[in-house]
Amino acid sequence: MARPSIKTVGVIGTGVIGSSWTALFLAKGLKVIVTDPAPGAEGKLRDYLIKHWSSIPDVKVTQSDYLNNFKFVEKIDPHLGELDLIQENGPERLDFKRRLLAHLDANTPENVIIASSSSGIPSSEFVTECKRNAARILIGHPFNPPHLVPLVEVVPHPGTGHVYVTAALQFYGSLGKDPVLVNKETPGFIANRLQAAICAEAYSLIARGIVSAEDLDKTVTSGLGLRWALNGPIMTNTLGGGGDFNHFIDHLGPAFKTWLVDMHQHKFDIDSQDVDVLKERVNEWVSHVDLKEVEESRNELLIGLIKSKSESSQGL
Amino acid sequence: MARPSIKTVGVIGTGVIGSSWTALFLAKGLKVIVTDPAPGAEGKLRDYLIKHWSSIPDVKVTQSDYLNNFKFVEKIDPHLGELDLIQENGPERLDFKRRLLAHLDANTPENVIIASSSSGIPSSEFVTECKRNAARILIGHPFNPPHLVPLVEVVPHPGTGHVYVTAALQFYGSLGKDPVLVNKETPGFIANRLQAAICAEAYSLIARGIVSAEDLDKTVTSGLGLRWALNGPIMTNTLGGGGDFNHFIDHLGPAFKTWLVDMHQHKFDIDSQDVDVLKERVNEWVSHVDLKEVEESRNELLIGLIKSKSESSQGL
Repeated sequence: MARPSIKTVGVIGTGVIGSSWTALFLAKGLKVIVTDPAPGAEGKLRDYLIKHWSSIPDVKVTQSDYLNNFKFVEKIDPHLGELDLIQENGPERLDFKRRLLAHLDANTPENVIIASSSSGIPSSEFVTECKRNAARILIGHPFNPPHLVPLVEVVPHPGTGHVYVTAALQFYGSLGKDPVLVNKETPGFIANRLQAAICAEAYSLIARGIVSAEDLDKTVTSGLGLRWALNGPIMTNTLGGGGDFNHFIDHLGPAFKTWLVDMHQHKFDIDSQDVDVLKERVNEWVSHVDLKEVEESRNELLIGLIKSKSESSQGL
Repeated sequence: MARPSIKTVGVIGTGVIGSSWTALFLAKGLKVIVTDPAPGAEGKLRDYLIKHWSSIPDVKVTQSDYLNNFKFVEKIDPHLGELDLIQENGPERLDFKRRLLAHLDANTPENVIIASSSSGIPSSEFVTECKRNAARILIGHPFNPPHLVPLVEVVPHPGTGHVYVTAALQFYGSLGKDPVLVNKETPGFIANRLQAAICAEAYSLIARGIVSAEDLDKTVTSGLGLRWALNGPIMTNTLGGGGDFNHFIDHLGPAFKTWLVDMHQHKFDIDSQDVDVLKERVNEWVSHVDLKEVEESRNELLIGLIKSKSESSQGL
């Protein structure tokens, strides 16, 4: 069955993530019907859209269309028939999600994809009350802020249909995003697991006094992170092996194992008093940093970096 | 005791690392006396210098001075008295390093820093035969290529003098590098441990079929890595906690623990047949990629990224 093209998106919830999705959808020329029960949500959304217009890469519409192609509604129900896809950004509470998804499933045309931005709850847990077509429900987990950072983790539950997975990957790709497919539900998906891996070792090194919090971060920003912005760990390994991943693993394997054994022996325990030592050492550094300036500078460089990458012929 | 300023550097070994150090030292206006026993080493070094001139950030000399301020010598011994610092890049073999360091220590003026680029062998193991002044020996481990990537891990052994540690940090800093101090010898230092942490989880996810090798890398290059090029894991946590690291840890701690428990249960075993599965899945992807193009594009973007960062007011 050919799927209709997606022209109108429903956005449920306009917190940080929902507002940023709305900005992205509008900038790419979609119409958005959006709802949020919080007082003043419509005004806040409008402010958000105005503030972030200039930072969205590769916009497809005029600023005027961007600011006018959405409709903020108090109740989404009368509009569910107009939607070609729903991006749900409700609170991360299982009971809430279960009720919301059951309601959306029951009242939205049968083949419309319902994507949840949830990072914490696998969708198999919240589709349990969906009677109509749970196969069109999946996770589309963005990296904050979605209007800027290309990554979206697409995570089907065991009952999600292939056709919906393919369509979701195509949809996000058509917006200039870089969707990745998480084949099986896994706690933390991919990004949060990789992040936890590096953080756990970072916390251990800082708490043990091997390196200061500032120098730990510098090891990443002045070394590892520069590479990882351009090549992932696997391609970095492959290039490090002279173009041969097998050579890299065979050659570095033994050293790698030694490091991992030592890391395991000094594993950070988040329930121990080491957390207090960690906090103290981090705060010693962070309390002397102008965080507002760091964040502004980061945002500016991030926009430039994403632009340079998308202009690169290779499109890394 | 005031230390003389460093004007002439000795470079021992002109493999990839030694050649790149030589390029950096020359571009920053230092004189270099350099040696390598390999046949044709002088010609290869000259070719390397010519090739990489245009990629070195913030050069301090003309191209002509850059290409003429070094002297390639067959034997370094007659020149040891002229050196203000030695950067040693010999083979990573303990017996070789022990003999080399003992010889350099015995024949170089007593207060001259001897820095080793070694990534694998802690210096406490190779200073054992140094009779004169082992306190001036330390590791200055660069991230490849040193003429471009700012990170240098400075790792003293337990007997290294504070004065030499401080002087080494100052010296690398004066060249525009970002040195970090590794307070205690630790297998893999900082960068390789963080790299091993992320790779171990990446290998597990790929071998288990949770994500393809290509999408694993994309998770980093289109998400995590973009952040890490600009803010390290600790600052990312802090900004994620609304400027409060403690809030971040207290809030995310429980989820973090759940992920780490699951990651531990599915820990990658480098001695198992999972390695073959991993290799097969990586090669399925990599064999379809033009690695030369990826590398060229990466180098070009890396130069641009380092330039943008150094021009940023914040100097992240």
